[in-house]
Amino acid sequence: MLITKFAIPEVIFGNGSIKYLAPCARRLGAKRVLLVSDPGVERAGWVEVVMDLLRKDSIECVYFNEVSSNPRDVQVHKGAELYVENGADVIVGIGGGSPIDAAKGISTIVGNGGRIRDYEGANKIMRPLPPMIFIPSTAGSGSDVSQFCIITDVERQVKMSIISRSLVPNLSIIDPMILMTKSRELIAASAVDALAHAVESYVSRMASPFTEPQSMQAIQLFMENVREAVDSKSPEALKNLSIASTAAGMAFSNAGLGIAHSLAHSIGGRFDVLHGMVHPVLLPSVMRFNLMSRPKKLARVGFQITGVQCRSEEKQAMKGIEYLEQLFLDLGATCRLNDILPDDSELELLCHKALPDACTLTNPREATCKDLMSICEAAW
Amino acid sequence: MLITKFAIPEVIFGNGSIKYLAPCARRLGAKRVLLVSDPGVERAGWVEVVMDLLRKDSIECVYFNEVSSNPRDVQVHKGAELYVENGADVIVGIGGGSPIDAAKGISTIVGNGGRIRDYEGANKIMRPLPPMIFIPSTAGSGSDVSQFCIITDVERQVKMSIISRSLVPNLSIIDPMILMTKSRELIAASAVDALAHAVESYVSRMASPFTEPQSMQAIQLFMENVREAVDSKSPEALKNLSIASTAAGMAFSNAGLGIAHSLAHSIGGRFDVLHGMVHPVLLPSVMRFNLMSRPKKLARVGFQITGVQCRSEEKQAMKGIEYLEQLFLDLGATCRLNDILPDDSELELLCHKALPDACTLTNPREATCKDLMSICEAAW
Repeated sequence: MLITKFAIPEVIFGNGSIKYLAPCARRLGAKRVLLVSDPGVERAGWVEVVMDLLRKDSIECVYFNEVSSNPRDVQVHKGAELYVENGADVIVGIGGGSPIDAAKGISTIVGNGGRIRDYEGANKIMRPLPPMIFIPSTAGSGSDVSQFCIITDVERQVKMSIISRSLVPNLSIIDPMILMTKSRELIAASAVDALAHAVESYVSRMASPFTEPQSMQAIQLFMENVREAVDSKSPEALKNLSIASTAAGMAFSNAGLGIAHSLAHSIGGRFDVLHGMVHPVLLPSVMRFNLMSRPKKLARVGFQITGVQCRSEEKQAMKGIEYLEQLFLDLGATCRLNDILPDDSELELLCHKALPDACTLTNPREATCKDLMSICEAAW
Repeated sequence: MLITKFAIPEVIFGNGSIKYLAPCARRLGAKRVLLVSDPGVERAGWVEVVMDLLRKDSIECVYFNEVSSNPRDVQVHKGAELYVENGADVIVGIGGGSPIDAAKGISTIVGNGGRIRDYEGANKIMRPLPPMIFIPSTAGSGSDVSQFCIITDVERQVKMSIISRSLVPNLSIIDPMILMTKSRELIAASAVDALAHAVESYVSRMASPFTEPQSMQAIQLFMENVREAVDSKSPEALKNLSIASTAAGMAFSNAGLGIAHSLAHSIGGRFDVLHGMVHPVLLPSVMRFNLMSRPKKLARVGFQITGVQCRSEEKQAMKGIEYLEQLFLDLGATCRLNDILPDDSELELLCHKALPDACTLTNPREATCKDLMSICEAAW
């Protein structure tokens, strides 16, 4: 670590914290907010809750819900038009990673103009964005605290990683009660995404003493709570998964990720697979690939996962990886790549597209296209 | 924990990170900054470094150095006048806790008017402050990342605790190289202040899963590095103490402190004692007093300090407290209250003044004036 940066939004966390939305929005100057969400969150009733809270405080609300899972450039541009046409002044996003990433994309265009693909990569956003408040409805993406925004370029069929300090919102309001209305499958897939953030950020080239404790806390809370959260939706376990997701978000936002995410973006851009579905497939193979570059750290991860201490670092790390594979099966996740992709005819193209993703740069072990192919074949 | 808030500034950390000052100030709109420091930092050459960096980037610089250890209300008001007279637009503070707290006080008056005593207590600052960038020159106060500001009310001879989200600066630039120019005594006193922040925030009533890992990391890094940092000023050990101080600052800023700090403020307000000198005297007695309210947590602190596991939580906690007492002696600290105060004639008055301090509210065990007296007598 030479020089490291650490930036996170202000966080309000806890059951019922959603009630702080309106005063917080007013503090940021809100008179008319653009509210971004999606039909799923709408059906669960949370969009109405948010609208009521805002209106009771005399804040007008323009609503945009044309956001798909793996949000698209065209949706971002449409939302930005709506913001400008209506003279909105603050953006509020409620939902999983998709509506929040869409809201970030909209904010980027509103503040900087152009098309969203102009900002692909790291540090391309030069002008300030309108104030943003996010309310996550899943415990996984970490987008509500991170400087990452993932948008699908429909024409090129790629998920673009857009990374900028400016994408950290002003405020994240994390109310674990919202998770209660989610399906078991979505809770599991989101939690595994948070775990992947924690593991990849912990071994990342940019990991620092500011991010490492957050990664480790996230792994610990995931291990202690994921089964109970998925089995019984216990409020305590869901709250702890929310903390895990937030901690992992703070970590990866500042430390970056690795090739499990590069590949997940590439696959998600082409086949529109739910992001959290890809990690049970890829993460173990990627951890095996990275083991020679970060034996000590992956051994520590292994210990955090299993509680078992071995004489060799390699063995301890491997025990953790194997434990995870079993856990993913127990959670009902799809664990082989051939269950996600229609066939293996595009594997090489997918790896080729994953290579230039910004997440590849921070992977602890340098990876070629051939390496990515081997990882995919091991996970096939 | 019902609902918890967590807010920290953006942090740039590392040897040489001071070079980012000018571009960061410009990003905040700086054309003419008010630079706040003190004669000690000036003598070490850092004020000149900062002025050069700003001027090379065409940012004008108005300089204010009338800041004493335990900064005073009159100094704050004078600095605020200078800011307004010169039409400054950003405040930069470089130094230990004193210049940074003075800069926060100045910022408060510039943004809100009135006198600094109007803002004593929690959440009294209503209007926005000018942008602030802080560069800490000691590893201890944590003021560069915290929402706390401690100013002495000269008339009443009290150190006022002013606590507000608005006092979190925009940016903290932490360059551990600056610590190299500090004396061994100051390094030790500052490090013990950081430790006191870590311990008091860990057992605070407002501690949360967002602050607890930071407190524990700070205790661990303090224990691993303080002797080497004080003995040899090793750059690696100083860097690690900087990380400890920053982590402890993030923790106490959001979790609050306890009665060791209430008493330290009361004593410092009356006798102008260096803040870091008071903790070796008071912290062990306060930890003993709090033991019955937080046995599990103080046992964990004990384990982090000594590495020794005992069957009883109380014993494990006590071992940690005793270890600390020996460590403070080894570091050359004054460890009895009668070495700091001229006599015991004002003890009751000091305890009486400590009671309404904002830090008393978050102490894990409720304390009466009589309790504070007992703590002082135990430390006499």
